[in-house]
Amino acid sequence: MSVAQEVEVANKVYESNFTKGDLPLPPGRKVAIVVCMDARIDPAKSLGLSEGDAHVIRNAGGRASDALRSVIISQRLLGTREIIIIHHTDCGMLTFKDEDLKKIIKDSGGDADHLSFLSFSNLKQSVYDDVNYFKNNSLVLNVPITGYIYDVKTGRINKV
Amino acid sequence: MSVAQEVEVANKVYESNFTKGDLPLPPGRKVAIVVCMDARIDPAKSLGLSEGDAHVIRNAGGRASDALRSVIISQRLLGTREIIIIHHTDCGMLTFKDEDLKKIIKDSGGDADHLSFLSFSNLKQSVYDDVNYFKNNSLVLNVPITGYIYDVKTGRINKV
Repeated sequence: MSVAQEVEVANKVYESNFTKGDLPLPPGRKVAIVVCMDARIDPAKSLGLSEGDAHVIRNAGGRASDALRSVIISQRLLGTREIIIIHHTDCGMLTFKDEDLKKIIKDSGGDADHLSFLSFSNLKQSVYDDVNYFKNNSLVLNVPITGYIYDVKTGRINKV
Repeated sequence: MSVAQEVEVANKVYESNFTKGDLPLPPGRKVAIVVCMDARIDPAKSLGLSEGDAHVIRNAGGRASDALRSVIISQRLLGTREIIIIHHTDCGMLTFKDEDLKKIIKDSGGDADHLSFLSFSNLKQSVYDDVNYFKNNSLVLNVPITGYIYDVKTGRINKV
């Protein structure tokens, strides 16, 4: 059974208990949360978010530059006025350098030299960098931005 | 109180009940799920995902091209071998055209003419387009890809 088939089954249970059918489009808590795609992180459960609360933008590393398009849409069209950035311990982005991945792809016959994979070697610095990326980007509104490191061993977020 | 302060409080509860501290980095169910950042969607709850199961990549619209960097990392470095794409009814991306947003930004003194906001006017077509984007991109491995539309009124995913 594919995972697609499995999620269809799981979704039937969710649908049968669903009571949130009249939520508005703009996030109720006016926040955009940028967080790594890592499988171990459940943003809703770990941060106390309910359906309707927050835009959740996720990519490899939780990188700000990769989230820019979404953050602009979130702020300019859907009214969010706060940003939270969450990177995490044991992140895959700490385990490789861009040139390593480009070589893997090249060795299999592809060419990703035009892409930036945004790997990083210092976790705390990556959070500072991404907070500052938004603070210094003129397309991003001047709103409160808070950066955290999520500890995958404890489930705790620690402010940077 | 900022939302950041509120999530810190909520996270203490999550941390105090946390039992998932020894999950491996690669997703257990070997799947990458690309889904819109929309506040009304809780991918874990609505698809039956637990911590450790799946990479969850989220951006405005759940667009494939914006998720490419993350999908490559997910497949080449962390072993996922299936992709699920989920767009949804009442999506913000249906409510504007790229030029509208560029004008809003220009009118406030900014310039986003170099960005593509990836808005769309046909929901079903946007899912087809994004499934095909991955299928036709030589940097993406040849894996099963399934596209859905999530109905925000019912909580149900419908295969496209």
